[in-house]
Amino acid sequence: MSAINHTVAALAERFELRFKGDGERVIDGVGTLAGAGPSQLSFLSNSKYTAQLTATGAGVVVLREENLPDCPTSALIAKDPYVAYAQIAALFERLPTTPSGIHPSAVVAADARISASASIGPCCVVGDGAVIEDGVILGPHCIIGEHCTVGVQSRLIARVTLVTRVTLGKRVLVHPGAVIGSDGFGLAFDSDRGRWIKLPQLGGVRIGDDCEIGANTTIDRGALDDTVLEEDVRLDNQIQIAHNVHVGAHTAMAGCAAVAGSAKIGRYCMIGGNAGVLGHLELTDRVTITAKSLVTHSIREPGEYSSGVPLQDNRQWRRNAARFKHLDEYARRLSALEKDSNNE
Amino acid sequence: MSAINHTVAALAERFELRFKGDGERVIDGVGTLAGAGPSQLSFLSNSKYTAQLTATGAGVVVLREENLPDCPTSALIAKDPYVAYAQIAALFERLPTTPSGIHPSAVVAADARISASASIGPCCVVGDGAVIEDGVILGPHCIIGEHCTVGVQSRLIARVTLVTRVTLGKRVLVHPGAVIGSDGFGLAFDSDRGRWIKLPQLGGVRIGDDCEIGANTTIDRGALDDTVLEEDVRLDNQIQIAHNVHVGAHTAMAGCAAVAGSAKIGRYCMIGGNAGVLGHLELTDRVTITAKSLVTHSIREPGEYSSGVPLQDNRQWRRNAARFKHLDEYARRLSALEKDSNNE
Amino acid sequence: MSAINHTVAALAERFELRFKGDGERVIDGVGTLAGAGPSQLSFLSNSKYTAQLTATGAGVVVLREENLPDCPTSALIAKDPYVAYAQIAALFERLPTTPSGIHPSAVVAADARISASASIGPCCVVGDGAVIEDGVILGPHCIIGEHCTVGVQSRLIARVTLVTRVTLGKRVLVHPGAVIGSDGFGLAFDSDRGRWIKLPQLGGVRIGDDCEIGANTTIDRGALDDTVLEEDVRLDNQIQIAHNVHVGAHTAMAGCAAVAGSAKIGRYCMIGGNAGVLGHLELTDRVTITAKSLVTHSIREPGEYSSGVPLQDNRQWRRNAARFKHLDEYARRLSALEKDSNNE
Repeated sequence: MSAINHTVAALAERFELRFKGDGERVIDGVGTLAGAGPSQLSFLSNSKYTAQLTATGAGVVVLREENLPDCPTSALIAKDPYVAYAQIAALFERLPTTPSGIHPSAVVAADARISASASIGPCCVVGDGAVIEDGVILGPHCIIGEHCTVGVQSRLIARVTLVTRVTLGKRVLVHPGAVIGSDGFGLAFDSDRGRWIKLPQLGGVRIGDDCEIGANTTIDRGALDDTVLEEDVRLDNQIQIAHNVHVGAHTAMAGCAAVAGSAKIGRYCMIGGNAGVLGHLELTDRVTITAKSLVTHSIREPGEYSSGVPLQDNRQWRRNAARFKHLDEYARRLSALEKDSNNE
Repeated sequence: MSAINHTVAALAERFELRFKGDGERVIDGVGTLAGAGPSQLSFLSNSKYTAQLTATGAGVVVLREENLPDCPTSALIAKDPYVAYAQIAALFERLPTTPSGIHPSAVVAADARISASASIGPCCVVGDGAVIEDGVILGPHCIIGEHCTVGVQSRLIARVTLVTRVTLGKRVLVHPGAVIGSDGFGLAFDSDRGRWIKLPQLGGVRIGDDCEIGANTTIDRGALDDTVLEEDVRLDNQIQIAHNVHVGAHTAMAGCAAVAGSAKIGRYCMIGGNAGVLGHLELTDRVTITAKSLVTHSIREPGEYSSGVPLQDNRQWRRNAARFKHLDEYARRLSALEKDSNNE
Repeated sequence: MSAINHTVAALAERFELRFKGDGERVIDGVGTLAGAGPSQLSFLSNSKYTAQLTATGAGVVVLREENLPDCPTSALIAKDPYVAYAQIAALFERLPTTPSGIHPSAVVAADARISASASIGPCCVVGDGAVIEDGVILGPHCIIGEHCTVGVQSRLIARVTLVTRVTLGKRVLVHPGAVIGSDGFGLAFDSDRGRWIKLPQLGGVRIGDDCEIGANTTIDRGALDDTVLEEDVRLDNQIQIAHNVHVGAHTAMAGCAAVAGSAKIGRYCMIGGNAGVLGHLELTDRVTITAKSLVTHSIREPGEYSSGVPLQDNRQWRRNAARFKHLDEYARRLSALEKDSNNE
């Protein structure tokens, strides 16, 4: 593998940053403040780590102007060092080379439309009426079901399944094991026969541009209308999005979050790890839900919301948790005492 | 694609419903009250949506007799409109056509028994001693391990793995990414050596007729006896069923629910999203567990059960949650005050 | 299939146990105390089940010396019957026979290094620079990405994906649907453009010897350094391990547990089902977290920790849960009453 090299001055010019120190220094990778060597770039975003900055062996550090005095090496000065670092670090990522064309082991339906610039990996299966646009990369074992579209420059790392009527926008990134467009969980209980009857799931899924879908995440297709992710939605691993959910642009969800059917999540929301949202609720824009919280009512005001109780030593916790079962009684007894006290 | 067409009168006859209005109207699809057009059928199940009924553009609406006066178009009258709608809507689902036979890319063991009417999709792998019965459809990338049986007319959408000793009944529907028959999590701690020792998982999994298993759901096989789902059990996505669990007929579980080893769930139970049941517990029939609750003791009485605390604004929640750590102390102090008060 | 047979005396000698009763009895399988027949071995580990022992039809039972008087059949006497049983039972497991060599449907990169004693199953895909060591078994549909190593005698049951820069130690067992080495969830919010920017995930994953990874579990690769599981870590199904997590040796996690980015879990920890650990926390050795608890601060002392509230009948629970929203107010009112009472 040939090296990837950029001088400090070249990085400064490319990302419109000022630099201080040795502009001719050649950078060939990135690392942590603690671990980076003289040919590597690191960053300081949180002043809490200033001690690591003063001791760093990095060749250059991306930082805020205010941290310059503590920097023992060259520096690239950014308003938001984390954002600048993210952009620079992307230069040093070695993506696997994937030649365009269809691997001989792939199985492609006769009427699927596949761009000549797309890459279809080993054992992929592409169904009737599917469309694979320019520059798409399907890694090994992807299944693109009937009437699905994969938009320009989207990348399905490996073993992604789009079941049916799924449309991915441009530059969508999907990680292994994700399933998009599976049947929504729609059942009617036939009380005469004492059995469940399945509702056919006739809608699809629409995923906007620049979305990212994590490993083993599942997104069901709609019952009648579509399940929708607007642009730049970011889903971590093992998230469950039920049928007819609508997720606003730029919303991010951490691992194992789950959203029940027909819920509508606003734009710029942050849903914490293993948090849940019940069905048919609405969350306005810029709502943050902390980890493992359960949203049981719609939220009209931006802000941060939580549920749950704190972790404790198990013996203490047992005593407190047992008391929770009588909380209503305690509140009544408290009110009664207050009344007594006022009457004296 | 040719259209799917049914007149209102034909639908009424087929499903033994009365109709009112234009029996000759041709219906070619279904839609929501708000979105359906003049050739589409919709339904009203919840009187909350009566305003949508009065404004609907649907060609015909399935509804209860009592809602007839508000219906601006033809109507099909049902005791349970949601159940009737589910049955009718199934007529309008376009399932992919899957010819019977074995795709040339599939890998089938010499002693597997495959019905001539079954369809084995691209890249499927069928192991020694497996049995694929009449009318089964295995979508692409299914793996049917050794000594597994897939019952009549079952349908594995795509990328389903049956590991070993798994038996699916008739008309079982399994969604992509599901893993059935994986090793139960059985470990013995060898305190002499300070290491885990794995217990071989020698049982299997038995899934009853008409069950549905969601995307990326996992069902482990038993340690000695089998893990069992009785008939008509409905599991949503990302559910975890541990080894030796027994789930009674007609029980439904929402996404991300989890049941620990050897728990026994009754018939007609409803387990909410991300709810959990600890190991070795028993739940009687007709128990409902609300979302994200944790069942920590057996339940002998039918009914609805819950745990958790309500969602609040994070600042309020922090104050309340901090107090939870002293709940036992508060209860004691409350009792002491009452004693003082009574002694006065 | 030929039978697997061992006499009681042979089992005693092999596992250095004493036996009582008929040493010549031939054992050909294992079973529960309730279900085992005269040619099967069972065990009693928990004296709670002594009634089952007295009624057992097993040919031989592994038990503690103190339970001998209640044993109606031959016995193998062990200090820890569960550990001894685990070792013996492994003799009776019939693993599928997997001939070494590369299945013709597998797709192997020209510069991958594959041991002649390894078995590469149907439809496996092995990428550039991958190393498959001696005695490895890759079941069907495994994907071994670029620069991944699978250590000696590791076994990937089926449909396992190692994305890139993943190293598995010796004797690692991975169940279907697991994804190891997927992108960590690293995002920087570019407030100028109101959009997320992805941080490239340049690290890898290192899994120690004798680890077990459950079905549909996901382990992300590190952002800069590696995500690490030390030796003998045991992960159940549907666990999520985020980037740069470090899990100490001999730690076990039950189904649906989740650990957020850069958390450091000690050795010999036990993380309960669906429990969560927030990012950047540290748990010392021998910490137990009970099911569904959320760890929100680092833990310096070994012991058992919990959060959550108990399950109740929904009507009672609603009353108590509503009161939780005023807990801080109640505590203040209680203090005020106490002050009044003391001032009298």
